[in-house]
Amino acid sequence: MSTHSTPLATPRAASGAARAAVIGLGSMGFGMAQSLRRAGFDVAGTDVNPDAVARFVAEGGRGAASPAEAAADAAVVVCVVVNAAQTEAVLFAPGGVAAAMPEGAVFVSSATMDPAVARRLAAGLEATGRHYLDAPISGGAARAAKGELTVMASGTPAAFAAARGALDAMAAKVHELGDAAGIGASFKMINQLLAGVHIAAAGEAVALAAKLGLDLDKVYEVITGSAGNSWMFENRVPHILAGDYRPLSAIEIFVKDLGIVQDMVRAERFPAPIAAAALQMYLASAGLGFGRDDDSSVARTYAQLSGTRLPQPGGPAE
Amino acid sequence: MSTHSTPLATPRAASGAARAAVIGLGSMGFGMAQSLRRAGFDVAGTDVNPDAVARFVAEGGRGAASPAEAAADAAVVVCVVVNAAQTEAVLFAPGGVAAAMPEGAVFVSSATMDPAVARRLAAGLEATGRHYLDAPISGGAARAAKGELTVMASGTPAAFAAARGALDAMAAKVHELGDAAGIGASFKMINQLLAGVHIAAAGEAVALAAKLGLDLDKVYEVITGSAGNSWMFENRVPHILAGDYRPLSAIEIFVKDLGIVQDMVRAERFPAPIAAAALQMYLASAGLGFGRDDDSSVARTYAQLSGTRLPQPGGPAE
Repeated sequence: MSTHSTPLATPRAASGAARAAVIGLGSMGFGMAQSLRRAGFDVAGTDVNPDAVARFVAEGGRGAASPAEAAADAAVVVCVVVNAAQTEAVLFAPGGVAAAMPEGAVFVSSATMDPAVARRLAAGLEATGRHYLDAPISGGAARAAKGELTVMASGTPAAFAAARGALDAMAAKVHELGDAAGIGASFKMINQLLAGVHIAAAGEAVALAAKLGLDLDKVYEVITGSAGNSWMFENRVPHILAGDYRPLSAIEIFVKDLGIVQDMVRAERFPAPIAAAALQMYLASAGLGFGRDDDSSVARTYAQLSGTRLPQPGGPAE
Repeated sequence: MSTHSTPLATPRAASGAARAAVIGLGSMGFGMAQSLRRAGFDVAGTDVNPDAVARFVAEGGRGAASPAEAAADAAVVVCVVVNAAQTEAVLFAPGGVAAAMPEGAVFVSSATMDPAVARRLAAGLEATGRHYLDAPISGGAARAAKGELTVMASGTPAAFAAARGALDAMAAKVHELGDAAGIGASFKMINQLLAGVHIAAAGEAVALAAKLGLDLDKVYEVITGSAGNSWMFENRVPHILAGDYRPLSAIEIFVKDLGIVQDMVRAERFPAPIAAAALQMYLASAGLGFGRDDDSSVARTYAQLSGTRLPQPGGPAE
């Protein structure tokens, strides 16, 4: 519930700072909350994990016990949870943010989700007099902490206007992609389709190179200078060369995101056999026990399926 | 047959220029022959297409009526034909280059082929006292003409030594990948696996974006600045945006090259489902009649399979 008897378009703290809420203080949300504070916002943070909230408070942020408490006096509510289901619960579960946030405030929705779901959540929130900005992000935790994310945003002009200051604080680049929710989510899913395929293809190529007995360091050098290169090849293959599969981004992320792609293409009657093949390799990777390991673990799946040795931590191939 | 009674390691023209032969004056071979001439080589060129030879002669090169005639007095024989079968015919068909080229000369084999075939051709030639350099290339026609190719080379030290001057004339970068034929070919196939998957994935993603109604120019802008980018996405998607499918590199090239990948992985007992899915899309593209069109035509195949409109030449989507 809102604690305000009169809705405020831009609630401010006693200090005069604009108030923002960040729901989800994971690797991305924590950095985004830091960036908002650095830009002068009075930020309330909340997370299902109390340790994350305690860490945010220790750095000078305000902690909140629930999304509704965080959002109650916020002009901007940034939601950086795992998926559509969590976003929907944050908004519309009993005691959710949709009823708690001030009318006229904006909900900035950054979880990756099916565009059809983004449209449905936006319609539900807009019917209550709040704004919804479809605003998936890319860039990783380091750029989140520096306020240098890329945002793929769409929404009404009013939603953009209400979110502008927060977007500028969190992002180096805000792509303004259209005037309705769902468009930003669609762009994000196109990116995820390509990113997921490129990581799996890198795993396929590097494990095959290992099977052929090639020097993998030379493979990295040659491919990154050739037409076979991709952003993901360049970024993920060093994990494989180091045998280091600590999760910067986990296999389960692409089980989820390429799963959303398959939901979308089924609805669109659009065959996507390459994304489908890549999804099967992420599923096999999760089935082999790599679900919470780095997504470059897809190379380990190819290695297991072919009796191939990959580099081990701290040394050459086993 | 060699016209020399005494084999010459480095035959020179009367002018003192080292003699080279280029077999195959297509878009790559023609530029490589030009680069060799610019570096001072006396170059004999030949091609199954007499017009290509006439064009080379018009630019000041020496024309030859057959590979054997071109190779008869060459210290370096550069072979830039379409595939392994043509390379094998150039070398070992009756009246072929293997018997014609001087002993001690080097055969620089640049066609993309199965590494197992490269090893077999090298063994056959080396048994006659000539050298074989496994030297597939990348970089495209423009860089071939400028002498700025990338070469992925492997072979004996003697083969490298005999080919050094020609390699320096044709390439900006020579990767020295090992001391036996087959290694260079393996690196090239790893590159082709990735390149072929990335073009097909770009087609899948862009056609899906069109189906979702997204602004494709914005898709290009967002993706090329995001983690979903690849060298091929950046290079090929402009063809789709322009509706211009004139062949810079044709669908049939990847029918061939991903076919070689499938031959290799079958022999290696290595499952490669993503490359396999991409190959099916090139086959479907050829089946729809796009075989001799630009490889970005794979996007047109996705469009046809999903009732999607892509941009047409000189205007917005049809």
